[in-house]
Formats: sequence, C-alpha cells, structure tokens
Amino acid sequence: MTYCVGILLDAGLVCLSDSRTNAGVDHINSFRKLNVFERLGDRVLILMTAGNLAITQSLVSMLQEQMNAPDTRPSLWNVPNLFEAARHVGETLREVHRRDAEALQAFGIEFSASLILAGQIRGEAPRLFNIYAAGNFIEATPETPYFQIGESKYGKPIVDRVLRRSTSLDEAVKCALISMDSTIRSNLSVGLPLDLAIVRTDALHLDSHRSIDAGDPYFSMVRTRWGEALRRAFEDMPNPDWSAR
Amino acid sequence: MTYCVGILLDAGLVCLSDSRTNAGVDHINSFRKLNVFERLGDRVLILMTAGNLAITQSLVSMLQEQMNAPDTRPSLWNVPNLFEAARHVGETLREVHRRDAEALQAFGIEFSASLILAGQIRGEAPRLFNIYAAGNFIEATPETPYFQIGESKYGKPIVDRVLRRSTSLDEAVKCALISMDSTIRSNLSVGLPLDLAIVRTDALHLDSHRSIDAGDPYFSMVRTRWGEALRRAFEDMPNPDWSAR
Repeated sequence: MTYCVGILLDAGLVCLSDSRTNAGVDHINSFRKLNVFERLGDRVLILMTAGNLAITQSLVSMLQEQMNAPDTRPSLWNVPNLFEAARHVGETLREVHRRDAEALQAFGIEFSASLILAGQIRGEAPRLFNIYAAGNFIEATPETPYFQIGESKYGKPIVDRVLRRSTSLDEAVKCALISMDSTIRSNLSVGLPLDLAIVRTDALHLDSHRSIDAGDPYFSMVRTRWGEALRRAFEDMPNPDWSAR
Repeated sequence: MTYCVGILLDAGLVCLSDSRTNAGVDHINSFRKLNVFERLGDRVLILMTAGNLAITQSLVSMLQEQMNAPDTRPSLWNVPNLFEAARHVGETLREVHRRDAEALQAFGIEFSASLILAGQIRGEAPRLFNIYAAGNFIEATPETPYFQIGESKYGKPIVDRVLRRSTSLDEAVKCALISMDSTIRSNLSVGLPLDLAIVRTDALHLDSHRSIDAGDPYFSMVRTRWGEALRRAFEDMPNPDWSAR
C-alpha cells in the first residue's frame, strides 16, 4: 500500500509520501514514490505515485527517457504549463497501459495506478493534479486544496479539519505528518521512511526535500505529542451520563 | 453505507450504529441497523448489521421467526451462551445465503453482510463477536476490545488511541460518538439518526437505548467541541521550520 498527500496553498506546495511497498505481507520493501523534476528558475515538478509498482516505475522511467531524448517531442522539460504536464503524464501512463494491461489481465492483475502531480512552471501559479489510471485527471481548486492517493481514509479527518488555502507551509507540513502518523498506526503497509518536498510559490526551485525516518526528532515529537494531545482533548470533553438508569 | 462500532469493556458493552442506507446516491433512506433482543434477568443481545439491506433484514426476520416458533429449535431465546448465539446467527445467515445468493449473483450483486453481535447471557461475562458473510466469526479479546463494520477507517484512529478495556461506559460512549462524527463528516452515506445501546456487566438488561439525531444536545456539543479541540491541539503543536532554506 501507499499513502501520499499533496497540498496546494497560497504559500506554495507540500508533498509527503511514505515508501513502503508490499506484494503480500511477506514481501515488503521500501521504494521512493516521490519524484522531483527541477530546472532552477523555470519549473519544479513533483510526481507522487500509488498502485502497481511495476506500472508506476515504468511510467517514471518513460517520463525520464522523454526528458533525455534529444528531439523536441513533448516532455516534462518542454511542456508550457502544469495542465499540459498532467496531460503528458496521463498520455505516458496510457502508453504503459497499451504495453502492459493485456498481459497483466492474463494474470488477473488489475492495471492500478494513481498519481499526484504538483508543481509550478514559470508564467503561472503553482498547481496540483490528481491523475487516474485511465490517464484522465482533476485539478485542485480553492475549495479542495489537497489530494490523497493510496490509503487515504485514516489520515483524512485531520486534514479536512485544519487545512485551508491560507495555511502556512510549515503548518501544512505538520498537518501532513499528523495525517501520515494516523495512517501508519492503522495500516501496516504504510511505512517509513517518508519523503517530504516543499515548494514556495514563485521560487521555481525545490525549497526543501528531506527523507524522514524513525529517528527524525520533529516527526518523533509529532507522533508522541499528537497522541497525548488527543487523549487530553478526549479527557477534557465532558462525558454523557447516559449509562445511569 | 453504514458505520457500526461495538465495544467490550470491563464495565459492559457499548454499541453505536448510524441509520443511513443507500442504493446509489440518489436513493438514500434511513433504516435501523441495531436490533435488541432482551429477556430481563436472563439475556440481552444486540445485533448490528452492515451490507446488503435485503440480506440483513431477511436475517433479522428469520431470527425473529425462530424466536417466535413454539418448538424447541435453537433460537436466540434458548442458546446457552454467546458463542452458541454467534453460531446460530451465522447458521441463519448461511440459510439466507442458500436462499438468495444464486439469484443475487445472476444480477451481479455480491452477497455482502457483516455483523456485530454483543451481549450477555446469564452464567457468563459479556462477549462481543464479529460475524462475516460466510457465517464464520471472531470474538473480541482484551487486546482488541472493539469491532467496527461498514465504513470503519475514518473513525478508527481515535478509538485506537483512547479505548481500553478499563474505559468507563460513559467514556466509551463519548469515544464512539467522536468516531461516528469523524465518519459522518467524511462519508455522506453514513448519517443520522444514530442508535446507541449500553449494557452494564451483569445487569442482564438494556441499561440505555436511545436514538440520537442532529438536535441531541450532547452529540451537538461533541461535534462542536471536538473539532475545536483538534484545531487547538494542532495550533499548540510546534511547527517545523523546514520551509526556511
């Protein structure tokens, strides 16, 4: 399984992913699911992937081949805006589908892939897209400033309650880490290390990109203190007296 | 969809269910999913149901027919303990399967049913079971004092963080209502009114059984204050400073 969350704020973008993959509980590995494509001053793109690892790795490899190709075919380096970048990623995913879907089907394997594409290209504001296995996609709007892929449910309530477009980058990082913590506690197939990427609006470069493991002091503090804070909030709330007949 | 949670404590049992059913988003109704079978001083049983409403209603009707039958065939009135009660419910569900599964399959409808059976029968302690569509079941142990059926994920983190076997009945009610609130906020197909049942250990009768709608003062207070408490806990937690290059 996987959990990734991408957040679009007035201040910029926050992307967080776990790194656990499993083919059955007896076959668990760690793979990066957060990919960064950056050209200083021109564009910074972040692609997070969930679903069948063979499919999503093929997708990323093909995107990289296209970027390395000498000719002028569309690639993430030359698309003029984020909408075209999402179309390009979707088209490339459809190419993976044309190559592999039939063979996978013969083995009863579903063609599963779910993507978050975030970033900014010079000339427009930062944008956030959720791309589906069929290569179609939706874009985040002010009403819904975030997308999740993978195991999204455990970590959704806290995001819905605290996240706004006006939230600061650092607060959004805190929110994403709490959301990830709730998910990790409830789903063994979501695990450390985490990949975090922060993009500040109009910086046109990666503001921060860090790997967070169990030893990370801030994440450890969040895990401990959030649990305590929840238990305290719970205790502070009055009980009903309904069990008294 | 549905969300039901059953909690087994040293102090007794707490069962909470929503009442929304939907066949597509354009066909939403309210049906009770919490059924109580009580004989003062002898036994109190609570059965909560999720899944295909036609299946779970058939199950409950057949259980009631068996209880009303004059003869001595097994029924929830004469089973000697909760384990036998769970077996009886599972067997009856298998009878529904024998009747309906093939016809449902012809229409591409899955035989979906998930049950929580909670209660106490004189001579043993309160017990809690989770019964599957195949009629097999598992029982709650001290390590896992609760079961959820239906839309379980949104409401799971808070239960995992605060619930213990030693939790009081009133605190468990509070926990269940917070868990339900998180679920209702995230899944439109889970909705009010709620059905709540409380059984005190060795009372051998229903301690409290109430319907909770939007006007309920305690539930309204929980919904408002829990959101505020979460936001305050979130604000009180230090931010990282990772976005500062």
